[in-house]
Amino acid sequence: MPQGKPEQVPDDGLTTRQRRAQPVLAVHTGLGKGKSTAAFGMALRAWSAGLRIGVFQFVKSPKWKVGEEAAMRALGDSGKGGTVDWFKMGEGWSWLARPGTERDHAVEAVEGWAQIKRDLAAGTYDFYVLDEFTYVMHWGWVPVEEVVETLGARDGAHVVITGRYAKDELIEAADLVTDMGKVKHPMDAGRKGQKGIEW
Amino acid sequence: MPQGKPEQVPDDGLTTRQRRAQPVLAVHTGLGKGKSTAAFGMALRAWSAGLRIGVFQFVKSPKWKVGEEAAMRALGDSGKGGTVDWFKMGEGWSWLARPGTERDHAVEAVEGWAQIKRDLAAGTYDFYVLDEFTYVMHWGWVPVEEVVETLGARDGAHVVITGRYAKDELIEAADLVTDMGKVKHPMDAGRKGQKGIEW
Repeated sequence: MPQGKPEQVPDDGLTTRQRRAQPVLAVHTGLGKGKSTAAFGMALRAWSAGLRIGVFQFVKSPKWKVGEEAAMRALGDSGKGGTVDWFKMGEGWSWLARPGTERDHAVEAVEGWAQIKRDLAAGTYDFYVLDEFTYVMHWGWVPVEEVVETLGARDGAHVVITGRYAKDELIEAADLVTDMGKVKHPMDAGRKGQKGIEW
Repeated sequence: MPQGKPEQVPDDGLTTRQRRAQPVLAVHTGLGKGKSTAAFGMALRAWSAGLRIGVFQFVKSPKWKVGEEAAMRALGDSGKGGTVDWFKMGEGWSWLARPGTERDHAVEAVEGWAQIKRDLAAGTYDFYVLDEFTYVMHWGWVPVEEVVETLGARDGAHVVITGRYAKDELIEAADLVTDMGKVKHPMDAGRKGQKGIEW
């Protein structure tokens, strides 16, 4: 796909250079595959551009996305591009509620968001992946209004948020929103995930 | 997203182990962002699993996706995971004796597909990214029936095909299809692509 020309030039008084320097808030949502995968694909570009990447992974399974993590860490360690920090909010931190652990997950979610706010304020990273972060808002552990307000006040960092059930307020605030629609999935045909494909 | 259980167990006489060894044909289509990006994200996992990756980029812009290419090549060069070969139609296929960029796109596309067929037959790669390959079928340069037949006869390689206008026959043949729907794009607001985000 070629690089397109803007469909319109905004009357915002900014030059193209200034507009290019504006940080992007991207949201990958929908019921299909590719939300997180595309976020890590974007991180490849960010790495290549020398950006400091921070991944905050709100995931359940310790096996999930180990491939992306290994690859991104290898890139960060290569010294050729940007840096990569990768944070997992704990193997016990699951939005699939288990008996007796639901409150802990909410607490961990809030703690994770608090760290992201501190990093945004300190300018720690240029490119954030907040993986599966939509669920934290979906379940009300962090108010979407607070996320939108915080991100709206950020200075220069690109942010990619993934997950189902992205709230309208977040979509409204985002610059780039893609809905990954499920058309067909191998598990529909009873196939299990495969190494190199699913993790 | 947690690893799910299959919704049904197929009556195909295969064990889970055998079913896991089945190669995946994935198609990322739709009008939104993330089709190629998610394919390269999948390649991260493939690299981590030690697979031999072959990327065939059916695009003309020399600037497009240089970030992904740099990152994937750095991974391939790291010696820690799988290998990465990356071929671009836009610079003339590098396996040709006299690659050039001023030749007929249809001819170049057919040459690319011919090489992919040779590589599939020879078992050169375990994981193929056929980037923007849907257009080659959409424009009739390579018949979709031939692609489906060839991929149906392949032995063990995972294949990811990206691009708009995926034909019904290809979707029918695929195991995993995601439609990337455009909800919102920065260029709608007159913003130009940014380094680290768009390339």
